[in-house]
Amino acid sequence: MAKSVFYHAGCPVCISAEHDIVELIGAEKVEIVHLGEVSSRIGEAEAAGVKSVPALVTSNGNVLHINFGASIADVKG
Amino acid sequence: MAKSVFYHAGCPVCISAEHDIVELIGAEKVEIVHLGEVSSRIGEAEAAGVKSVPALVTSNGNVLHINFGASIADVKG
Repeated sequence: MAKSVFYHAGCPVCISAEHDIVELIGAEKVEIVHLGEVSSRIGEAEAAGVKSVPALVTSNGNVLHINFGASIADVKG
Repeated sequence: MAKSVFYHAGCPVCISAEHDIVELIGAEKVEIVHLGEVSSRIGEAEAAGVKSVPALVTSNGNVLHINFGASIADVKG
């Protein structure tokens, strides 16, 4: 199975959700992307349909917005 | 690892998220509870901190609200 991608921005809600997702899915099955540090990938996240972080984009392209840390607009600053 | 519990209420958002979660985590690791059909468990979901469905309560008690289908108040009708 292709990897899922977990987008976050370092907020407390994001970090908590990241730990849960990694434990549930397995670290080898999910790529973690910190949009606050790798802002060049914000466009990729938006194109995938990510409206807020933390969010998980599954290998089949579905977006799961998990709780609510910050909107993508906030991440862009 | 103890099972996680996925609470939903049959809405389209819920069903889509259910498929994704089962595929990601594995059906053997998650109990699916349809609160629309098993309303006796709404109290349990609320006690766990579930504010809206679909939501996943992890084995360590964290609540992941995934996208937004309906509030618990709506599920209660």
